[in-house]
Amino acid sequence: MNVVITGGAGFIGRRLARALLERGTLTGLAGPGQKIDQLTLVDVTPAPALRDPRVREVTGDIADSAFLNGVIDGETTSVFHLAAIVSGMAEADFALGMRVNLDATRALLEICRTRRHVPRVVFSSSVAVFGGALPEVVPEGTAVNPQSSYGTQKAIGELLVNDYSRRGFIDGRSLRLPTISVRPGRPNAALSSFASGIIREPLNGEPAICPVDADARMWLLSPARVIDCLIHAHELDAAALGTDRTVALPGLSVSVGEMVASLERVAGPDVAERIRWARDERVARMVATWPGAIETTHAQSLGFRADDTFESVIRQYMDDELSSRRG
Amino acid sequence: MNVVITGGAGFIGRRLARALLERGTLTGLAGPGQKIDQLTLVDVTPAPALRDPRVREVTGDIADSAFLNGVIDGETTSVFHLAAIVSGMAEADFALGMRVNLDATRALLEICRTRRHVPRVVFSSSVAVFGGALPEVVPEGTAVNPQSSYGTQKAIGELLVNDYSRRGFIDGRSLRLPTISVRPGRPNAALSSFASGIIREPLNGEPAICPVDADARMWLLSPARVIDCLIHAHELDAAALGTDRTVALPGLSVSVGEMVASLERVAGPDVAERIRWARDERVARMVATWPGAIETTHAQSLGFRADDTFESVIRQYMDDELSSRRG
Repeated sequence: MNVVITGGAGFIGRRLARALLERGTLTGLAGPGQKIDQLTLVDVTPAPALRDPRVREVTGDIADSAFLNGVIDGETTSVFHLAAIVSGMAEADFALGMRVNLDATRALLEICRTRRHVPRVVFSSSVAVFGGALPEVVPEGTAVNPQSSYGTQKAIGELLVNDYSRRGFIDGRSLRLPTISVRPGRPNAALSSFASGIIREPLNGEPAICPVDADARMWLLSPARVIDCLIHAHELDAAALGTDRTVALPGLSVSVGEMVASLERVAGPDVAERIRWARDERVARMVATWPGAIETTHAQSLGFRADDTFESVIRQYMDDELSSRRG
Repeated sequence: MNVVITGGAGFIGRRLARALLERGTLTGLAGPGQKIDQLTLVDVTPAPALRDPRVREVTGDIADSAFLNGVIDGETTSVFHLAAIVSGMAEADFALGMRVNLDATRALLEICRTRRHVPRVVFSSSVAVFGGALPEVVPEGTAVNPQSSYGTQKAIGELLVNDYSRRGFIDGRSLRLPTISVRPGRPNAALSSFASGIIREPLNGEPAICPVDADARMWLLSPARVIDCLIHAHELDAAALGTDRTVALPGLSVSVGEMVASLERVAGPDVAERIRWARDERVARMVATWPGAIETTHAQSLGFRADDTFESVIRQYMDDELSSRRG
């Protein structure tokens, strides 16, 4: 197996790479359990080397077809397409979002179409494809109605993955990712960045600002579960997916107030008190258009799983990030 | 007002042009009833001249941005974007469909984005955005699931029109057109071409082949009503449309058997007997993925109207085409 991860220097890309290297195999044309011979990580910025002989790290702009053509080569059997301009950035710089989130996705699919293998392509979409007046729980089969350019570009990616798969150019799967929390590191330009920040910063002894009201409801998934879901999506038999290759992933439906209460229960009131509430209209309005819960019977029947509780998600972050730093 | 029609040499484009010239006005930034000063018809092939001093006819490839840039100029106030590679052709030539149905739409919107006016853009989408397992009547808010590249490209166009409108780059409206029947002229590469052919050819004394079964249910609109709907879509106040600029047009839900029975009632059994039934799997399978009826409460509340009966649609064709030819 010859696997490519776009966005390979990002947090999810990096973590997925480590999981794949540890696992060592993926399902290929010859069936499950095929050895991963090469893992290519491509990103616009470099990251600290993974130091594994199977890893090839490439730096460049995936919206540049000529460059991407050298990344996804005749031996590529699988692509995890995670690279994206995040929501806040795609809203601030329309042309950049279109270039990376739409043009690069299109270029990637076009390159796959010309390859001798039919690559499995796992595309990371988002709950941001939904918007407008939504019921408390978004039923399956609900029309997308993105209220951001990011969500629009992801919805277009889903449509392309479906059509390229229907025509047999790729064997694609699109996952509508919930908001991922708790991300390590620093805040980013995603409008959902606070959903990690209000947990991460207080645990790190730093103040955090919560830009939405306590009753804002989020649809969340932990980093560990996202990695499980990405790999599981790759391993699924295409026949199980039917005519629509898009799967809305299960998540936890938690209000921001409940997130903070969980933090207090796990880490104590002193930690939770590091959060200052200061509504930011731009963020609050956009977050309000995202679904707070989604019906995911289909995803669950396919074997995708969410986290048990948000407290377990916080503990996962503390185990992964804080203990390793102290150790 | 300075109006552009893409696909201006096509049947609908031509008919829309004549209707606009006769009407003489459209709603502009200054309100309703603004005089149409110029009407630009652009198409890849020329058509017999319309002989009106307001008309400018341009021939070229709208997927060529440089060319399109000269068509939609700084004075353009309205665009009716009708040009498309039809379903059968987009299925047969994937690259061509992507180039015209996706790239040209994108180029058109990009050009509009840079113009000093915010043009009203009416985009012709299609019921082909729907597919998969559908109920007898497709409810509003149903997710698209196109089973053709044409339907995929139209669904992407809708998403782009929505996002460009949300950001204030254009003032867009997308109409999901039912299958149009009865089209005059010759069969085309649309998979729905038979829906006109089985009426038109017999009325013209010619044999016709029906490639689908009699119980195949179609969602139909007459040419006259489509023109009404295109103009009505342009005239609507954006506020009435809400966060989704896409409107599924009302239609007539008629089985192919009922279409033929209507033909027999209007024109007699001798005419209807000119139809030979010969199922074509490629056509029948694709048509089966399209909805036979759609809930259109929203469109009706906005003032869009379907035809009364399919018999009236047949009579409309006979009045428009046969009498003018005889006269």
